[in-house]
Amino acid sequence: MTLGREAVAALDQADPLASFREEFHVPDGCIYLDGNSLGALPKRTSERVQELIEREWGASLIKSWNQHGWIHYPRRVGDLIAGLIGARAGEVVAADSTSVNLFKLMAAALTLRPGRNVIVSEKENFPTDLYIAQGLAEMLGTHELRLVDRSELESAVDEDVAVVSLTEVDFRTGAIHDMKGRTRDAHDKGALTVWDLSHSAGALPVDLEAADADFAVGCGYKYLNGGPGAPAYLFAARRHHASMVPPLTGWMGHEAPFAFDTDYRPASGIERHLCGTPSVIAMAALEVGVSIVARADIGLVREKSRRMGDLFLQLVRERCRDRGLTIACPEDSGVRGSQVSLRHASGYPIMQALAARGMIGDFRAPDVLRFGLTPLYLRYVDMWDAVTILSEVLESEVYLEPEFQKRQLVT
Amino acid sequence: MTLGREAVAALDQADPLASFREEFHVPDGCIYLDGNSLGALPKRTSERVQELIEREWGASLIKSWNQHGWIHYPRRVGDLIAGLIGARAGEVVAADSTSVNLFKLMAAALTLRPGRNVIVSEKENFPTDLYIAQGLAEMLGTHELRLVDRSELESAVDEDVAVVSLTEVDFRTGAIHDMKGRTRDAHDKGALTVWDLSHSAGALPVDLEAADADFAVGCGYKYLNGGPGAPAYLFAARRHHASMVPPLTGWMGHEAPFAFDTDYRPASGIERHLCGTPSVIAMAALEVGVSIVARADIGLVREKSRRMGDLFLQLVRERCRDRGLTIACPEDSGVRGSQVSLRHASGYPIMQALAARGMIGDFRAPDVLRFGLTPLYLRYVDMWDAVTILSEVLESEVYLEPEFQKRQLVT
Repeated sequence: MTLGREAVAALDQADPLASFREEFHVPDGCIYLDGNSLGALPKRTSERVQELIEREWGASLIKSWNQHGWIHYPRRVGDLIAGLIGARAGEVVAADSTSVNLFKLMAAALTLRPGRNVIVSEKENFPTDLYIAQGLAEMLGTHELRLVDRSELESAVDEDVAVVSLTEVDFRTGAIHDMKGRTRDAHDKGALTVWDLSHSAGALPVDLEAADADFAVGCGYKYLNGGPGAPAYLFAARRHHASMVPPLTGWMGHEAPFAFDTDYRPASGIERHLCGTPSVIAMAALEVGVSIVARADIGLVREKSRRMGDLFLQLVRERCRDRGLTIACPEDSGVRGSQVSLRHASGYPIMQALAARGMIGDFRAPDVLRFGLTPLYLRYVDMWDAVTILSEVLESEVYLEPEFQKRQLVT
Repeated sequence: MTLGREAVAALDQADPLASFREEFHVPDGCIYLDGNSLGALPKRTSERVQELIEREWGASLIKSWNQHGWIHYPRRVGDLIAGLIGARAGEVVAADSTSVNLFKLMAAALTLRPGRNVIVSEKENFPTDLYIAQGLAEMLGTHELRLVDRSELESAVDEDVAVVSLTEVDFRTGAIHDMKGRTRDAHDKGALTVWDLSHSAGALPVDLEAADADFAVGCGYKYLNGGPGAPAYLFAARRHHASMVPPLTGWMGHEAPFAFDTDYRPASGIERHLCGTPSVIAMAALEVGVSIVARADIGLVREKSRRMGDLFLQLVRERCRDRGLTIACPEDSGVRGSQVSLRHASGYPIMQALAARGMIGDFRAPDVLRFGLTPLYLRYVDMWDAVTILSEVLESEVYLEPEFQKRQLVT
């Protein structure tokens, strides 16, 4: 059975999430399949940021830390995010970058497992996660990073392992880890887990409590629509709070930040993982993005995401045969994150040629074409139109033209 | 000789910096003497941020990293700041918080001095600087923090010292360190220096190159007017770049951030000290603030700052006699930063009572009333009007009323 565009449009008519698209700016003539790199702009963001700048910073100046609750932003946005990831209020703060938060949690986790000197991760983990673990191990001089293939993860965790660091959804293939299973394996050997939720939170149901997870981090500018370089977040299960030693002991993590004491004493709860002052302007933008996601039924988001992915792959199979494409993501939507990934030997110029037609995805070396699916502002017809463009670009071989070969700094 | 308000207003008539005030929002009825905690809002900031949000993020989405040069922000703003602190282009990046940047530089500096296990600082250093050094020393388990009084600094630096960490301008008293002298003392003993410029850059001439400084950090939201929690910056002298090992090895500090390699290889220059993605919205606001400061003649800024401080203290001596105030800053403006500090046993309620009259400064425990002087948007008459309010509050003893005793979360 070959679908036509009308049949696909009918799916949008019946979509219970359709109205969310009205809350975002989606540029005309653009099919934006890169919300897993940078989420789209919520319509309310600009006004809220303007209000913060003019009425809070401009008019109330330093008093806004109290009057407008700036001091509570990391915790307030953290509590909103907690609701998206199966954490409890008081277990999450928004602050710093994903990389810095990874460092904080991995370093603190190592102090909870003295005598164990190995951090386990997988070779295909998101690069910054690997870099941070590598830098931490080198800094300490006492720990090593053990990188293994996905299939070897279970056997790689032994009694020497302090921490297992994994990203729930693989950034290239979209494959989802069994968070509960991998966490149980780690705990069985006495190790702790640090989960990176950057490619899962906001796009699929995450339940850290059900998985008995120890620690997690995530990104504010992908599925949470917080804006470029938005503050990230970190989660620490409450059972670990009292015993964790924060390595980045900045003033905002102090028990009494305004006492200006000489000695550092960590705050009692999750706030001990704050460090310096986060950008309040960036926090206001993040709060707008997270608030939209928090209003959506994550079960419906996940269902639409799976159906959009299945539809995209079905259309690729039907309309892009024999063009050198292979499918690089799981075909089973139950273990596929909110993206589809294809491979092609000319992946880079093809992605440039798609962009020239208004279809934005991203290329991930060596040969992956990655398309993010964001159910809050994408429609089923976008899948149809995207595959139309893809099939035309492949058939015409326009991507062989020199203009599409040029490398850009940011890919 | 007792000055009158007209004589003071005449100073403003002759002020070559007077027109800069037009570039800032200064709320009506407010004498804002807290620009050393949070700089005032530049008028251009809101429009620039709105443009970034709507036309760059909203309309161009992920493409803005190339099209609008987002990827160059840390270096571009860093180069602007370099011009304010006597550094060369390529020695400064804007990113992360002051606290995180302190951690990066102190940790890297320790790796440059193997075999030495002491970090020296002064007891009165800004708290977050002390906390970060303390946290780093505890994390490593091999180093100790040696805290001494200001007068003991020279003798405290011996052959065991790896790093001397100091803030150029004391946050309570405004006393300025002899950066050149302290750096030379440290170098004579083979130690490296990390200077915190948060209370100096933008307010007084800083010449890191002339001081032969090794490393420095600073805050974007005080005299640089970048907005609440603006990105901070860090400086590393070029001679150290190749040998420094960054401890926070995030993807933005990688030699090829978009190659998505498994192994971390630090970028060759100052970029190796980048870690995660900084907020682009916050960077745009910071760039506006720094650009204004960069256009001002820092010699004139310093001269006005010294004269404003002298005037304030003269008026306090004349008009607030026998009210329990003592002067807590250097009387010699040549060694006083861009602030005046007073002590009073009822410092906290007095500051609340001043705020109720529209005079905003800040209180620093145990008894310091601190007033920041920002020559770009303050006038000499503001000094006159401020001391008028101060004298009236002291004379009336209104600060004894219960409403002014109440503690606020942020002081």
